[in-house]
Amino acid sequence: VVEGLKLLQGALAVGAPVESVFVDGAARQEPEVSSVLADVAGHGIRVFVLAPDVLARVADTVTPQPVLAVVGMPAARLDQLEDATFVVVCVDVRDPGNAGTVIRVADAAGADGVVCCDGTVDPFNPKTVRASAGSVLHLPVVVAGDARSALDTLRAQGMRRVAALTRGGEPYTAFDAGPPLALVLGNEARGLPPDLAPHIDAYISIPMTGRAESLNVSTAAAVLCFDVARRRSNLHDVVDP
Amino acid sequence: VVEGLKLLQGALAVGAPVESVFVDGAARQEPEVSSVLADVAGHGIRVFVLAPDVLARVADTVTPQPVLAVVGMPAARLDQLEDATFVVVCVDVRDPGNAGTVIRVADAAGADGVVCCDGTVDPFNPKTVRASAGSVLHLPVVVAGDARSALDTLRAQGMRRVAALTRGGEPYTAFDAGPPLALVLGNEARGLPPDLAPHIDAYISIPMTGRAESLNVSTAAAVLCFDVARRRSNLHDVVDP
Repeated sequence: VVEGLKLLQGALAVGAPVESVFVDGAARQEPEVSSVLADVAGHGIRVFVLAPDVLARVADTVTPQPVLAVVGMPAARLDQLEDATFVVVCVDVRDPGNAGTVIRVADAAGADGVVCCDGTVDPFNPKTVRASAGSVLHLPVVVAGDARSALDTLRAQGMRRVAALTRGGEPYTAFDAGPPLALVLGNEARGLPPDLAPHIDAYISIPMTGRAESLNVSTAAAVLCFDVARRRSNLHDVVDP
Repeated sequence: VVEGLKLLQGALAVGAPVESVFVDGAARQEPEVSSVLADVAGHGIRVFVLAPDVLARVADTVTPQPVLAVVGMPAARLDQLEDATFVVVCVDVRDPGNAGTVIRVADAAGADGVVCCDGTVDPFNPKTVRASAGSVLHLPVVVAGDARSALDTLRAQGMRRVAALTRGGEPYTAFDAGPPLALVLGNEARGLPPDLAPHIDAYISIPMTGRAESLNVSTAAAVLCFDVARRRSNLHDVVDP
């Protein structure tokens, strides 16, 4: 379920299989809404007009949106990432806001896909979709069960599996970001389970110079993914102090 | 108001002026809680034991914490940042989660302070304190009113004011991060008000290679602050693909 005009427009723009659209009866005449509905009709998608109170009750947000859409979002398969050069793997990332932000960041930094393992929240849950700002529709998102077997499949597909630790890993600016890379992120509180060690090729950390003890998993993902993008796209420093 | 054992321990560790501590009567015998209470008593801080339902009603979180503490957090003044080499300025950052995360990231990346202007949420609001993971206690946080006069004061203190834009600015890896720097972040939806232009010296953006349209303000802050830290600390790339 995709909520709101902006996410619906995003779904249409990327050609996602929008199955049906539900619109608030009171809002359907608003210019913005009716322009999107015309687009929806042009795609031959069914539109259902609902009494105002119905949508408010069904919606997941505090401020209900004028439209909801049911979009077929088939999870991708690991073998679709065979030619990937950069994927992000979430192991037991529980919070929908964090998982959605990781997917948004991976998309923005040009990753080829995101793999959700073990206890990770459903990436197609409405809260995750919202936090991803539509990015779950932009890049392949794989729902993989067991992290060990997913990491072994990625290894067999030629990827180097590099995991982020709060501390003790190699500085993130120093590891070899060149080869096909699987960046592995762990649980918000506990990090990665120790029994995953045989399935990890290297560990990296973000050096912190202040008094803060750690970063949120989605914040760390942003720093790490954009540094990979920077180094790969030759966004070299013009001025280095 | 600081909620929870971890934030209270953090406040004690950095010598913040903890005024009084409120503990849940049912939880005070738990080993973790009583060990922190012993520490509190050692500092001569008053402890109030409350009936269990009182704390649950007062607390701001869904899962109430066993302790609450009232901590004096006097906002810093701009002139305390006179010798700063890196500060983050929030203009109209409305969401407490975003503002708190920006403060946490600024702290982790070694910034000297954070300045909150105009419509920015109160940095000492319990939600912001929680999202900052205690970082509001680690570095000077200034509550400044008018953004224009705050930016002019920072300029007079020798800082270069560099603002982040969603697009159209210089790539963030290319601008001169060397001189004393004020990194200016705008509102979640609208960015910076146009009338701020005369008070900004340069604009930067994060190039995005995927289909994502933008990053959340706190995510962007993470990428920008850590790139400043990387370039200043000579965390140079050992291997550059």
